[in-house]
Amino acid sequence: MKLPPRTVERLSKYRRLLRKYKTEAGDHIHSHSLADLLNISPEQVRRDMMLIGHTGNQRKGYSIDALISRIGGIIDGGFTQNIAVAGIGNLGRAVTTFVRKAETQLRIVAGFDTDPQKINTEVVGIPCYPISVLPDKIRELDISIAILTVPPDAAVEVTGMLLDSGIKGILNFTSVHLDVPGEVYLKDYDIVTSLEEIGFFTRQN
Amino acid sequence: MKLPPRTVERLSKYRRLLRKYKTEAGDHIHSHSLADLLNISPEQVRRDMMLIGHTGNQRKGYSIDALISRIGGIIDGGFTQNIAVAGIGNLGRAVTTFVRKAETQLRIVAGFDTDPQKINTEVVGIPCYPISVLPDKIRELDISIAILTVPPDAAVEVTGMLLDSGIKGILNFTSVHLDVPGEVYLKDYDIVTSLEEIGFFTRQN
Repeated sequence: MKLPPRTVERLSKYRRLLRKYKTEAGDHIHSHSLADLLNISPEQVRRDMMLIGHTGNQRKGYSIDALISRIGGIIDGGFTQNIAVAGIGNLGRAVTTFVRKAETQLRIVAGFDTDPQKINTEVVGIPCYPISVLPDKIRELDISIAILTVPPDAAVEVTGMLLDSGIKGILNFTSVHLDVPGEVYLKDYDIVTSLEEIGFFTRQN
Repeated sequence: MKLPPRTVERLSKYRRLLRKYKTEAGDHIHSHSLADLLNISPEQVRRDMMLIGHTGNQRKGYSIDALISRIGGIIDGGFTQNIAVAGIGNLGRAVTTFVRKAETQLRIVAGFDTDPQKINTEVVGIPCYPISVLPDKIRELDISIAILTVPPDAAVEVTGMLLDSGIKGILNFTSVHLDVPGEVYLKDYDIVTSLEEIGFFTRQN
């Protein structure tokens, strides 16, 4: 199914909100209530539903269970995807713990680091391997996504290893600009740049 | 100066790359070299320079020192802005350490938490206060930006306190949808949604 990134993002958020809403408010939801939860327009919700071919009941709205399962079919594609965390420092450990607590089909299955103290131990519940075995482990464990939390100096080299090992998507926390082929899906979480952007705009008001 | 968010983002990245480039490659840089560093077009670089009213030397390119200082004047606005970290758990501590290591005019000056073990101690180099004194401390320390790393359950309540205390910008790591007034600059780092988005698109290729 072809969908724009923004729609996929909203589907993920709809699902999270629907899971919460269900325990609090009931079985069905109208597009305007779902829209309210995300501060978007009911038209936006209805457009997204049309894009994924989902229809509701005029009177009762969308069945929450049916919608959660429909979104799951699209976002998760019916199977678990494996993630590696490259760089098990403070940030790597914190992000790993955060993702493991979340309700998602994505699974962090391996960490990589160069610190002898961490290598071949379990760190925050996942096995930590030396960077040297990264290519083998990525293939062996069928890992398609990497979270990059290595120190800036190592970012380009480790990304090269990930790409050579066939990684398909990267969430980059390093603030280092990465040059990846078009078929690799890269998302940058550039914390300092985002804070500088926020700083700039807070001074405009 | 009115600038689009994307331009501000690139200015922050230009500056970081220029600082690095300077120690490695010299005093001046041409728009095409700067473009190469970020994988964008030289036209984009020249458009950004025009927007900030910066001109280079036709033969030698832009003076790196002059450009770094020009960008600083715009992004930093000539003074330090203070940041609070709400929620000094794993993620809060990791992000604090990350920002403190970075070269930026933004300064993290306070943390807030409910854990008695942390309150009134220094955590990763910043004083940690109880959430109850948040409104006072935000005003006293002239804090304009908050990094939100509290547990999801506390996100809405703590955001309300931040807004009541006059906070102007928020970097939200909680994955909780926040409803903020239009004049508050909000940026969401929704890790799980971003990973689900990456997961979806890696399966398309």
